[in-house]
Amino acid sequence: MKRHRSLILTALTLGLAFAAPASDPPLSSAEILQRAAAADWRSPDPEDLLLLDLDSGRVVIELAPAFAPRHVANIRALARERYYDGLFILRAQDNYVVQWGDPAEEAGSRKPVRKAQRTLPAEFLRRWDKALPFTALADADTYAAAAGHVRGFPAAGDPAAGTLWLAHCYGMVGAGRDVAADSGGGTELYVVTGHAPRHLDRNVTLVGRVLSGIERLSSLPRGSGPLGFSENAEQRIPLRALRVAADLPAAQRPRLQVLRTDTPTWAAFVEARRHRREEWFAHPAGRIELCNVPIPVRGTP
Amino acid sequence: MKRHRSLILTALTLGLAFAAPASDPPLSSAEILQRAAAADWRSPDPEDLLLLDLDSGRVVIELAPAFAPRHVANIRALARERYYDGLFILRAQDNYVVQWGDPAEEAGSRKPVRKAQRTLPAEFLRRWDKALPFTALADADTYAAAAGHVRGFPAAGDPAAGTLWLAHCYGMVGAGRDVAADSGGGTELYVVTGHAPRHLDRNVTLVGRVLSGIERLSSLPRGSGPLGFSENAEQRIPLRALRVAADLPAAQRPRLQVLRTDTPTWAAFVEARRHRREEWFAHPAGRIELCNVPIPVRGTP
Repeated sequence: MKRHRSLILTALTLGLAFAAPASDPPLSSAEILQRAAAADWRSPDPEDLLLLDLDSGRVVIELAPAFAPRHVANIRALARERYYDGLFILRAQDNYVVQWGDPAEEAGSRKPVRKAQRTLPAEFLRRWDKALPFTALADADTYAAAAGHVRGFPAAGDPAAGTLWLAHCYGMVGAGRDVAADSGGGTELYVVTGHAPRHLDRNVTLVGRVLSGIERLSSLPRGSGPLGFSENAEQRIPLRALRVAADLPAAQRPRLQVLRTDTPTWAAFVEARRHRREEWFAHPAGRIELCNVPIPVRGTP
Repeated sequence: MKRHRSLILTALTLGLAFAAPASDPPLSSAEILQRAAAADWRSPDPEDLLLLDLDSGRVVIELAPAFAPRHVANIRALARERYYDGLFILRAQDNYVVQWGDPAEEAGSRKPVRKAQRTLPAEFLRRWDKALPFTALADADTYAAAAGHVRGFPAAGDPAAGTLWLAHCYGMVGAGRDVAADSGGGTELYVVTGHAPRHLDRNVTLVGRVLSGIERLSSLPRGSGPLGFSENAEQRIPLRALRVAADLPAAQRPRLQVLRTDTPTWAAFVEARRHRREEWFAHPAGRIELCNVPIPVRGTP
């Protein structure tokens, strides 16, 4: 948005602040991250990290067993029986999703599933267990009575009904399904690569979030067919492998940490994103919407 | 989100409905579009259509003179003096923006501006003139007291203050600026290619919206430098030409129509997007957020 690169580099996206004139000014979000303690960061369980290897490199996904325990277990099982290896990215629809699966499914010669399940009961929402560390946002959400974060994932909820669900923000990963609610299971997965399609909330089982490498998916050429499907085999991007990080030797696992979403540091970070104090902002919003809150990821120090 | 392509093709994105069992069921959004009258569509003024030609093809932008009259006039003037031709896309940041401008600006040897202006007073917001056809959405907006559409553009407003402004939804085009509010003018333009960065509303002058070809921008490889800037000249995508459609022979102008946003058809279309009635939806949202409302564009019949 800035005209000059030098200024853009110092002002945008991570909230890097210009030197502020006041004494003890509120910290910018970047300063808050810089000063965060080691305990403000968490290292995801290697059982919850999926590693998707494409020719272009690796995409790292964190699974969300607190929301979709059966799907998460099934996706691990599918990965462990090498179900995904050799499948293809079949769809890249602009401002929407990238999706992968078995191109032979339509031809009736689909790849067999062995120990894992092909379908599972839907896990669209869960009970709002007060033991879950839900950190609410202060501002109105168009789609839900409550919106916030749980263990590093964007979530929305209905306190009156006592239900909570993951939200379709950019980078979220879900399990495709047919018309029947229980017809998914994880054999086809999609990643949100556009403006958050929140109307899909509670309609598909979300299973996790991309922590790194999403640009390998979001910048793919859009499929030339309707809804971004590839129209021929040449357009399809092969999945070289999809692994659970726990199955790799420790030295080969990704070393990533995610900012905890249940700490005072997180609250300060969100507040700094609501009130952008960089000089550049003429009208700081003073508000923030669920899918506009970045959830910081860093390399493990 | 659907497991099978055949079903996905019939159910998603444009709201194509399965055959509904009830008599006289509400129409789906696709059915509403199919039945729309000729008068429900408008043909943008060729003076308001910018044609950005890249090696990969054309991007068509509709300008919004009702919101940024001076910037729009200046961008036309810049296009007419061929200011943009031969400049480059300098930035492609994932889930954010694609931006073009003059790479020589940093080196102090910037391309001259002749009759046009290099900078202009900001046009971040305007008076909420009741003569403007603002169609409000029914649901809460996180960032503004009112949200809706004006002449085919997403807009937000503050009725108490009597102000209205364009909203940073996917595909919106803005004029980059420096720290000073009045330091932009249109020599650098950006396009939103990610989740709507609504915190930029009222902070940058938005000038229009991409009507077609955005995938030529959104699928560009992300710049390898900080904030998605290209780090070397080889990464930069050249702008072959940027023209005002009115300056082309009529036969060479794009033949596009945009659904009017001030008609009963529009109201019905939005309502059908709020309440998705396709069988696939287990939990229709019953709500819709400003930047999730598609603004249909079609080839002129």
